[in-house]
Amino acid sequence: MFTVYGDRLSGNCYKVKLILEFLSLPHEWVHVDILAGSTQTAGFLAMNSNGKIPVLQIDDGQYLSESNAILNFLAEGSEWLPDSGLPRARVLQWQFFEQYSHEPYIAVARYINKYLGLPEDRLGEYQSRQEGGHRALRVMEQQLADTQYLIGRSPTIADISLYAYTHVAEEGGFSLNAYPAINRWLSRIEDLPRYVKMSPGVAEK
Amino acid sequence: MFTVYGDRLSGNCYKVKLILEFLSLPHEWVHVDILAGSTQTAGFLAMNSNGKIPVLQIDDGQYLSESNAILNFLAEGSEWLPDSGLPRARVLQWQFFEQYSHEPYIAVARYINKYLGLPEDRLGEYQSRQEGGHRALRVMEQQLADTQYLIGRSPTIADISLYAYTHVAEEGGFSLNAYPAINRWLSRIEDLPRYVKMSPGVAEK
Repeated sequence: MFTVYGDRLSGNCYKVKLILEFLSLPHEWVHVDILAGSTQTAGFLAMNSNGKIPVLQIDDGQYLSESNAILNFLAEGSEWLPDSGLPRARVLQWQFFEQYSHEPYIAVARYINKYLGLPEDRLGEYQSRQEGGHRALRVMEQQLADTQYLIGRSPTIADISLYAYTHVAEEGGFSLNAYPAINRWLSRIEDLPRYVKMSPGVAEK
Repeated sequence: MFTVYGDRLSGNCYKVKLILEFLSLPHEWVHVDILAGSTQTAGFLAMNSNGKIPVLQIDDGQYLSESNAILNFLAEGSEWLPDSGLPRARVLQWQFFEQYSHEPYIAVARYINKYLGLPEDRLGEYQSRQEGGHRALRVMEQQLADTQYLIGRSPTIADISLYAYTHVAEEGGFSLNAYPAINRWLSRIEDLPRYVKMSPGVAEK
């Protein structure tokens, strides 16, 4: 049994929810309220000294943080993660792209808008994220015009990583109208068996 | 034979140089000048549509980008990367920490200072990176006070990933005086067989 500490409306946490559902892995979900400072308590920092969600608690009482590391851990041995070699490295290429070139633009703009309500003193920062977000979307669009999923014909955890914030990019001010291949790919993922929406209302398992 | 497209003074590229040397893998190095716009040419974008170094060219003419993905690819099957399970995921945890919570502070401050010469109009951005950089260093210090290397008693590619910019953090204005465990760890890595310095003068292979 796994326990996830996270917020269902955080894309980074939603990635973990998706792989748990796609693989039908039993788990409990413990809600963590970042705006209330719950990631900075002594108890939370003992699980992740970097003070960020999500955190995965494993049976034996060990903890793993960083959403994409958690995806790799949970998907090992499944069809969601190639065993070795260039295909496995290509999954990581997209996941590191996500954390460096996509999330800091799209997720941060969404956070400022959706979580903080686009306050006046963050407006400049919000606007500064738009160009980088569209740059990342263009990189994805180019790939997805060639292949059904990011690394080929089958979905992998790379798709989960990029899906999480791309499908709510409009909440960060990014219109997806100019990205037809991305839109087809979003639909393809949403049609997969056991797909669940990003929602605080998903039933606990 | 591998070919690396990169800049020897970029920490992200230096990571690749280090693993190639530690594993004695034959390779060629092609210098790419980011300040001259060489990552934005059509030729370069055909190798990496995200327009960033380093890029690894593999025998069969395929290309892999993202420094940490390249490390995972090259180190697979070696003592630098655990085979599976939580130890392998723990390596990724540190590598994603590096790209999200360390590099955007320490490497960016160093870039503004060392590459751009700390121009007046980037001074605010430079200063804004200091707090986050020290936060990342404190997370590392806490781990390295407990274990010799980031995930235990042996060096892994997680150490290479974090070493690359930590050992030149002072070039970004980060004094390492307050981090004794980090300093001992830096020395430990520098004492490893086949270690090479970050230097444009390292002989080509």
